[in-house]
Amino acid sequence: MNEARALLVIGAGDATGGAIARRFAREGYIACVTRRTADKLAPLVQQIHDEGGQAHGFGSDARKEEDMVALVAKIEREIAPIEVAVFNIGANVRFGITETTSRVYTKVWEMACFGGFLMGREVARAMLPRGRGTIIFTGATASLRGGVGFAAFAGAKHALRALAQSMARELWPQGIHVAHTVIDGAIDTEFIRSHFPDRYALKERQGILSPDHIAEAYWQIHRQPRDAWTHETELRPWIESW
Amino acid sequence: MNEARALLVIGAGDATGGAIARRFAREGYIACVTRRTADKLAPLVQQIHDEGGQAHGFGSDARKEEDMVALVAKIEREIAPIEVAVFNIGANVRFGITETTSRVYTKVWEMACFGGFLMGREVARAMLPRGRGTIIFTGATASLRGGVGFAAFAGAKHALRALAQSMARELWPQGIHVAHTVIDGAIDTEFIRSHFPDRYALKERQGILSPDHIAEAYWQIHRQPRDAWTHETELRPWIESW
Amino acid sequence: MNEARALLVIGAGDATGGAIARRFAREGYIACVTRRTADKLAPLVQQIHDEGGQAHGFGSDARKEEDMVALVAKIEREIAPIEVAVFNIGANVRFGITETTSRVYTKVWEMACFGGFLMGREVARAMLPRGRGTIIFTGATASLRGGVGFAAFAGAKHALRALAQSMARELWPQGIHVAHTVIDGAIDTEFIRSHFPDRYALKERQGILSPDHIAEAYWQIHRQPRDAWTHETELRPWIESW
Amino acid sequence: MNEARALLVIGAGDATGGAIARRFAREGYIACVTRRTADKLAPLVQQIHDEGGQAHGFGSDARKEEDMVALVAKIEREIAPIEVAVFNIGANVRFGITETTSRVYTKVWEMACFGGFLMGREVARAMLPRGRGTIIFTGATASLRGGVGFAAFAGAKHALRALAQSMARELWPQGIHVAHTVIDGAIDTEFIRSHFPDRYALKERQGILSPDHIAEAYWQIHRQPRDAWTHETELRPWIESW
Repeated sequence: MNEARALLVIGAGDATGGAIARRFAREGYIACVTRRTADKLAPLVQQIHDEGGQAHGFGSDARKEEDMVALVAKIEREIAPIEVAVFNIGANVRFGITETTSRVYTKVWEMACFGGFLMGREVARAMLPRGRGTIIFTGATASLRGGVGFAAFAGAKHALRALAQSMARELWPQGIHVAHTVIDGAIDTEFIRSHFPDRYALKERQGILSPDHIAEAYWQIHRQPRDAWTHETELRPWIESW
Repeated sequence: MNEARALLVIGAGDATGGAIARRFAREGYIACVTRRTADKLAPLVQQIHDEGGQAHGFGSDARKEEDMVALVAKIEREIAPIEVAVFNIGANVRFGITETTSRVYTKVWEMACFGGFLMGREVARAMLPRGRGTIIFTGATASLRGGVGFAAFAGAKHALRALAQSMARELWPQGIHVAHTVIDGAIDTEFIRSHFPDRYALKERQGILSPDHIAEAYWQIHRQPRDAWTHETELRPWIESW
Repeated sequence: MNEARALLVIGAGDATGGAIARRFAREGYIACVTRRTADKLAPLVQQIHDEGGQAHGFGSDARKEEDMVALVAKIEREIAPIEVAVFNIGANVRFGITETTSRVYTKVWEMACFGGFLMGREVARAMLPRGRGTIIFTGATASLRGGVGFAAFAGAKHALRALAQSMARELWPQGIHVAHTVIDGAIDTEFIRSHFPDRYALKERQGILSPDHIAEAYWQIHRQPRDAWTHETELRPWIESW
Repeated sequence: MNEARALLVIGAGDATGGAIARRFAREGYIACVTRRTADKLAPLVQQIHDEGGQAHGFGSDARKEEDMVALVAKIEREIAPIEVAVFNIGANVRFGITETTSRVYTKVWEMACFGGFLMGREVARAMLPRGRGTIIFTGATASLRGGVGFAAFAGAKHALRALAQSMARELWPQGIHVAHTVIDGAIDTEFIRSHFPDRYALKERQGILSPDHIAEAYWQIHRQPRDAWTHETELRPWIESW
C-alpha cells in the first residue's frame, strides 16, 4: 500500500478482535481498535507496535450513536481512511424464555446488533464516496438457529445477519464488500479456558478455533477480487458436530 | 369447548389481525384484540359480536413491558385463560443504509420484535402451568432475507423468527405449540389498495392474500394434533414470484 | 364435488400413503393407489370401500417411464381426471460413504427421486390443460440436511425437493399447486414398531407421527385457496428435537 | 512440500477446472486432470509444463464406476497420493418440466451428481488411511434453489450438495476436509463469450467470475488449518443480484 489505510475493529476485547488487528497490521494497515474502556487495549496496541505495526486504542461504547459517529470521524480525519471495518462484539447469554428479562433482551440486542448497525452505517458513509472498502460482521451458530435459551442472543445475531445481507445487496454494487462470518465452535480464549476446561482440552487436537486462523480468514475475505466475493463464511473445527 | 378460552391478538389494527380474531371467535374463542388506541377497535369488536362471537378491545402499547404484563394478567384473571396468542405487528419501512436513522432502526425493532418478545414471554408464563396453548408470530419475506433498504425491518423480522425458534425448541416439549408464519406477498388491505393500486388490481385473480385465508391457515396451525406440529408456514399467492 | 375426481398416490405401501388415500376418499375423491405389486393393495382398497369410498389399486413400478405414462393415461381415460397426486416413496438406507455401492446410490435415487420426476411430469401434462390440480411430494429431514451415512438418501431427497421447487415456480402461475412436505420424526408404522421399539413406545405420548394426521395436513394443503398457498410444510412431533 | 502430492480435477474441460489445476501446480502439486477425451487436455497439460509445473491428462468418463476406480488407483500407484480432489462437472440445461425427457433428467444427474459420488467415494478410500486430504465439489446457484426450467440441473446440484454435506459430517473428524462451493454468476468462459455476449461485456467491470479467482478460493479452502475449516463457500461478482 502506498497510502495509509486504517482497519477499524469494534470490540477488540477478546482474542479474536486482537488477532484480526494484528493480522491486518502485519499487512500495513493502521489498526484502530476499540473496547468500552481504552486502558485495557494497551497490551494489544503495544504488541502490534512490537511486531512493527501501527495501532491506536479507543475507549468507545459501540451502543452510543454519538460515540460511533465521533470515532469514525476522528479516524478518518486524523489517522487514515478506513479501508476495512470489523464488528466483533458478542453478548452470549443463555436464559430460558420466562427467565429472560426485558433488560437482558434489550442489552444483548444493543451490544450485538445495534452497535453493528451504527458501525456499518458510519463506515458506509465514509467508504461510499471512495467506492471501496470491506465491512465484516462476526456471526455465530446463533446467527442461523434459535436454540433453547438463546432467544436474546440468537435474536441479536439473526438481526445482525439481516443487516449484513441488506448492506451487502445495497453496497456491493457500489464497490463495498460487506461480509458475514459464522463462527461455529469454541474459540481459544481465556473465557473458554477458565469456564469450559473440557472444551479447552480439545485445543491439543486443534478442536477449538484459533483466533489467528479466524483472522487469516478475515484477511482472505478482504483480499478477494470483486468478481469473486464471498458474503457468508462459516468457520468450524474439524471435530465439531453440526 | 366446554370452558371459556381466550385468543389474544397483539396488533389487530390491520385486516389480518381482525380476520384472525373473527376466525377464532367463530370457533368459540373470546377474542381479545389490541392496538395502540382502543377506540379504533370498536368496529372489529362490534363485527365479532354481530357474528355471534365474543370480543374485547384493549388499547395497549406492545413495546411497554408494564402494559403487556398488565394486559395478559387482566385477560387471564377477568376473561379466560389465553389458549392462543398471535403477534401480528409489522413495521415495514424502507430506507437505504445511510438514510436509516438510529431512531427508525430502534423503533422498528421495538415494534416488530421486542413487543413479540414481551407477548411471547408473558403468555408462556401463563400457559406453562397448564401445559398447553398456541403462540403464533407473524413473519414476512424479510424474516428470511435482508433485501436492499430493509436493514431495519429485516433485522426485526429475523430476530422475531429467532425468538419463535428458541421458544419452540424450549416450549414444544412442554406442550406449547409455538409457530411462525412467512407471509410472502401483498395482503388485501386498505394500505395496499390506496398505495399500490397496480398490485391491488391483482385481487381480481386472487393475486394478493386474503386476510380470511391467512386466518384460516392460523386456525389450521392451532388445531394440529401434537404429534404433527408445524413450526414455520409460508403463505404466498399463486402468481407471486419467489 | 359434482364431477368425479381422482387422487393418485404413488407408493401406498406404507401407512402414510394409505392414510392419505383414505382421507381424500372420505371427501369423495376416487383413490388410485400404487405399489410395486398390486395384490398387497387389496386390504387398503377394501378398507376404503368399507368406509364408503372408491378406490383402485395398481401394481406399477414408479421407476419405469412406460409404467408411469400408462398409469396416468389409464386413470385419466378410464377413471377420472387426476386432481391430486402424491409421491410418497421413501428409500431410507444408511451406509458410510466408502460402503455405499454405486448400485445402492443409483437405486435410492431411482426410487425416491426419479419416480417423483416421472409422476410429476406426467400429472403436470394432464393437469396443465385444465389449469388446476395439486401435486405433493413427501420429503423428510434428509431433504434439508445431509447427515452421516445418508449420502444416497439425502441426495435423492434433496433432488426431489429441487424438483418440487422447480415445478412450483413453473406451475403455480398456471394454476397447479405443487407442494413439498418435510416429515421430521418417526411415523407410526409397522416398520418402526418392529425395528425401533423404544421409539415406538413414544406413541403413548404422541411422540411419533400419526399417518392420519399427516394425511390431514395433506388435505389442508390441497384445500388452500390459491391466494394463500404453502409450498413447504414441515411436520414434527412436539417432543422431537430439531 | 517434501513429498510428491497429486491434485485430481474431474472435469477440467472448462476454464475453471484448468485454472484450478494451474493454481495447485504452481504450489507443487502434480495436476491430474480429466475430461471425457484425453486429447483435448493437451493444451492445459502443456501450459502447466510451460509454467514449470507437472501435469497429466486422462480421458475418463466420470459416470463410469470402472473408469473412476481405475483412474484413482492409477494415480495413487503411479503418480502420487491424491491430496486434493475437485469435482467440477456441470451439466446446465434448461427445459420446462413437461419438455424434460427422462433421458435428459438421468444424464444430468449422472454427470453432475453420480460422477461426484464416484469420485468422492474413491478418493475417500485412498485418503482415509492417511487421515488427510481435501475434497471440493463445485456447486452453483441451482445447488440451493430450484428455478423454473431447472428441475434436472437443480436436482443434480442439490444431490451433489447433500453428498458433500454427508461426506463432510462423516470425514471431517477423520481428517479429510470436504467442501462445497456455490458459484453464483457467469464465469469468464468461451461458452459465455459466444452465447451471452451482453453478459460477457460485464467482464470489463469485473462483472463475471474469473476462473483464476475461483481457483484462488479453492486454494485458500485447501490451506485452511483444521481448527477453522469452511464447508460451503459462495463466490459471486460484486454486481450480481441475489
